[in-house]
Amino acid sequence: MPATLPAVIVFDVFGSVVDWRSSLIADLTAYGHSRGITGDWTGLVDAWRAAYRPSMDRVRKGELPWHKLDDLHRMSLDRLVADFGITGLTEDDLVHINKGWHRLNPWPDSVGGLTRLKSKFIIGPLSNGNVSLLLNMAKHAGLPWDMIFGSDLWGHFKPDPETYLGVAHMMGLEPGQIMLAAAHNSDLAAARGCGLMTAFWPRPTEYGPLQKQDYEASQEWDVVARDIADLATQLGV
Amino acid sequence: MPATLPAVIVFDVFGSVVDWRSSLIADLTAYGHSRGITGDWTGLVDAWRAAYRPSMDRVRKGELPWHKLDDLHRMSLDRLVADFGITGLTEDDLVHINKGWHRLNPWPDSVGGLTRLKSKFIIGPLSNGNVSLLLNMAKHAGLPWDMIFGSDLWGHFKPDPETYLGVAHMMGLEPGQIMLAAAHNSDLAAARGCGLMTAFWPRPTEYGPLQKQDYEASQEWDVVARDIADLATQLGV
Repeated sequence: MPATLPAVIVFDVFGSVVDWRSSLIADLTAYGHSRGITGDWTGLVDAWRAAYRPSMDRVRKGELPWHKLDDLHRMSLDRLVADFGITGLTEDDLVHINKGWHRLNPWPDSVGGLTRLKSKFIIGPLSNGNVSLLLNMAKHAGLPWDMIFGSDLWGHFKPDPETYLGVAHMMGLEPGQIMLAAAHNSDLAAARGCGLMTAFWPRPTEYGPLQKQDYEASQEWDVVARDIADLATQLGV
Repeated sequence: MPATLPAVIVFDVFGSVVDWRSSLIADLTAYGHSRGITGDWTGLVDAWRAAYRPSMDRVRKGELPWHKLDDLHRMSLDRLVADFGITGLTEDDLVHINKGWHRLNPWPDSVGGLTRLKSKFIIGPLSNGNVSLLLNMAKHAGLPWDMIFGSDLWGHFKPDPETYLGVAHMMGLEPGQIMLAAAHNSDLAAARGCGLMTAFWPRPTEYGPLQKQDYEASQEWDVVARDIADLATQLGV
């Protein structure tokens, strides 16, 4: 256990708490089948995720005004549907597919680990997702958050410091009383740069065969765990 | 049951979900006793609540820049401690007493009713309290919110329309898909003016012997219930 404990633990969500890739591939494959529309759904999901960081960077660099993640996802989806030659999708279909990011499933340890952590700490997502996306996901996946720290609260995406420091400011706490918990070393490095505590666990299958990094901790984070259940154990709950 | 159901139910909190008066009188009386400091704690609590609306109206009218409710509470407390001639309080005491608003207890039906409603609806407070106050209160009282819509999310206090409409905007929904649930007719009237659905139940002992209004519904709200448990029943959960 670290020498001091945080008051609030905020979690990266996509990949760290929920398995976006398996969830979306299964969701879109089933939906395409039900609609009689064929396409390389796996390829589309991987390309969609590859567009995630560049689309947010356009906002972060000021090339685009603030857009919530749902809107960035939709802009990428419209382009990728054309790129992948998928035809026959109506506007209702595209709205439904775009909300696939609201229907992601948790990793097996997530709900149990979070439920244990909630008994001792304030817990919430600190995600690039918007509040409505994260809230619908929480209802779908059974994630027992106390509060939803969506990126639309700050009008900034991670790793902008406004996100990590925004939690401390909103809670009336010092940054060192907040812990970021994530399966991504770069997110943790940005949080540590803002003075937050840090916890890491790996999700080695997050990107499936495309995984290239985050197999292990790249720094001595305050906690290095096997998964969220082990994080709860290491924090004494 | 109303002809259409909301997707999100937001709740007024002080008086509607938690019993601020009995909670604070008991909390401050016990604290004064433990510190050996005597005072008219009941009178102070009633005067503190009487200062609530005027203090927020100073912000709403632009006489003061945005202050979160914790800060307005503290400004009123400092004045009232002097008015009531209570002496011997340290800065730590004042911080603790001011956080009494984070330690309010629920009415007997609140936790059970909210837990039932949460199975079918997204639920959250829509309160003049700040997020940290409402979050600490939720942990103290066991309120199972999905999201905390604190007034610091909008930089506005109710009945400013930015609060009611802010929930709809953040959720990506129409105002008519949001229901405000409260024991205060004036709050519901403002919400209805913004197009929200409405639900009322009375809390006839909220102000103790000082109660003057809100014994019954003043308009035909979408739901008029006996309490939050009855609201859940009327909404089919």
